[in-house]
Amino acid sequence: MGVLDLQQAVLAAASLPQRRAIAKAITLLESTRDDHRKQADELLTALLPHTGKSFRLGISGVPGVGKSTFIETLGLFLIDKGHRVAVLTIDPSSTVSGGSILGDKTRMERLSVHERAYIRPSPSSGTLGGVAEKTREAMLVCEAAGYDIVIVETVGVGQSETAVAGMTDMFVLLQLPNAGDDLQAIKKGVMELADLVVINKADIDKDAATRAQAQITSALRLFGHHGNPAHAQAMHAAHATPGSPEAEIRFWQPRVMQLSALLGTGVDAFWTAVSEFKSLQIANGRLTMRREKQALAWMWERIDAGLKHAFRHHPHVRELLPQTIAAVTGGTLPASTAARNLLAAQDHHTNI
Amino acid sequence: MGVLDLQQAVLAAASLPQRRAIAKAITLLESTRDDHRKQADELLTALLPHTGKSFRLGISGVPGVGKSTFIETLGLFLIDKGHRVAVLTIDPSSTVSGGSILGDKTRMERLSVHERAYIRPSPSSGTLGGVAEKTREAMLVCEAAGYDIVIVETVGVGQSETAVAGMTDMFVLLQLPNAGDDLQAIKKGVMELADLVVINKADIDKDAATRAQAQITSALRLFGHHGNPAHAQAMHAAHATPGSPEAEIRFWQPRVMQLSALLGTGVDAFWTAVSEFKSLQIANGRLTMRREKQALAWMWERIDAGLKHAFRHHPHVRELLPQTIAAVTGGTLPASTAARNLLAAQDHHTNI
Repeated sequence: MGVLDLQQAVLAAASLPQRRAIAKAITLLESTRDDHRKQADELLTALLPHTGKSFRLGISGVPGVGKSTFIETLGLFLIDKGHRVAVLTIDPSSTVSGGSILGDKTRMERLSVHERAYIRPSPSSGTLGGVAEKTREAMLVCEAAGYDIVIVETVGVGQSETAVAGMTDMFVLLQLPNAGDDLQAIKKGVMELADLVVINKADIDKDAATRAQAQITSALRLFGHHGNPAHAQAMHAAHATPGSPEAEIRFWQPRVMQLSALLGTGVDAFWTAVSEFKSLQIANGRLTMRREKQALAWMWERIDAGLKHAFRHHPHVRELLPQTIAAVTGGTLPASTAARNLLAAQDHHTNI
Repeated sequence: MGVLDLQQAVLAAASLPQRRAIAKAITLLESTRDDHRKQADELLTALLPHTGKSFRLGISGVPGVGKSTFIETLGLFLIDKGHRVAVLTIDPSSTVSGGSILGDKTRMERLSVHERAYIRPSPSSGTLGGVAEKTREAMLVCEAAGYDIVIVETVGVGQSETAVAGMTDMFVLLQLPNAGDDLQAIKKGVMELADLVVINKADIDKDAATRAQAQITSALRLFGHHGNPAHAQAMHAAHATPGSPEAEIRFWQPRVMQLSALLGTGVDAFWTAVSEFKSLQIANGRLTMRREKQALAWMWERIDAGLKHAFRHHPHVRELLPQTIAAVTGGTLPASTAARNLLAAQDHHTNI
């Protein structure tokens, strides 16, 4: 099947052949072969005008917080409301071990077989940057295929939350009702990425969940205006002349809510909050602004990765590197001089 | 004065001419002229065998925490014990505004005029990476000149704490006795960089200082084994067979202490803790390991900065960039395709 046929098949009405085409398109995107990469770029560019119409929801949380149950419950709830739901996963553990924390086949049993859902596990090789790139591209394919809610899920390991927050319209952090958990999230800088914090398993210990909710709420408030530019702008707007246009612009304040994915309680309220967020972000222009910033940040991130790759694989650099590293760690060559020498080696070689 | 003369003058016995030579050498390092940079590289390489003998102490804290008073008190205390003390500053605010939070001339009045002290304010232009590079190199000059304690100070803005922790043997975080302050430090990931947390101004509110000490101690413990590889290894060692060599290796556990720089109370205990840290790090090999890692990290950081700079200033890239950015934000070109196109533009142009 050529790129054009594949494009047509992805864009076709929801059907089993369409789902096969999506899987095929994503496999093409994940291929490391140069000719495949060329075709993938063509396909993506052709699909691009048909993308961007979904709401992109990022969900993260440590293992055991109940992400799968939450996503299955939410996904079925959304399908029931007439949506089509795609679920993509970024699993940094798979890039290290080849295995996967999130790859378990038995996850989301009911959602995975539903004809209005599409679930794709994490690409299982490459760096986090590479995996995130594939997921971002897979998201575009799902959008072109008419899935109007795309959920990108990740486990709270390494920098994967930042990657997911950087490709979604809204980032939701799932927390367990205990305090150590939120200190971790604060420490890792994940809390400040969250547009919404959900305390899951609230049914197990209502008191602990309520305490956690209060703690996280005050933590979000305490560092809100440092971490969150939207907050600073909202403060600014609040001090603007009453009646002036700036004073009318409202911004989202991160919230904390309780939920039990297992019992299904709170899912309705959760979706109401998400819908409010979406309306507000559309009204104040932040949805578009966020997507534009994300696309540019993504472009620069890929450029940086490409520059580093080219540098490290440059024959002249590879030749010089071992002795340079030895000289730097041995204390006979200043690190900054070493850097300049290696950069010059790459330039020199390329020019001749 | 040629590079050789300058080298000799820096290495000369402590004297006024030596101090002038140090200032001259650092000015040379800070110059952006290409011929100066060449001379600076020569000078650094010549001085390198004479460096590395000082203890490098990083100190950070938000404005108002009392860094200047602390460093002046500590500096005079150390001089009194026979040390020679150099104080260097990384001030990220100076890179943005040209002005400087830390640049106030009246700071450290007594230390700055002492013949056994050398104080150099932050380089006032360039990116944080550039400023940090100059400071790192200035540190080497001070070491070659026989200063056996080098203090690198920064204000808690942006990534400057990471830069300072990345060039010193020990990183000390100054905190005020109130809780919001340490949540900020946890959130920004600075707390986990700290080998020692000092609660300054403990005399003003003893109760608050004691509460803060307890809070920070438990925070450090709670995420200690995630943030701090030394901790994990210490845990490992503790589980090793008793009497085996691994069980003998001891690692530093971050501590929290109270101090009043203004009254001078606690400075003695502070220096005892620093000395313990130093002995331990020498005994378990971590001082050397940390410096080697820092030098290599520094080399790679400078390489990355150089690669980005070359890319952004490449004529073909500059030509393509505006339309590429417009296409990416306009949604007609996938970000990853844009990155590949720009990378290809740079390669192509260089090869012809």
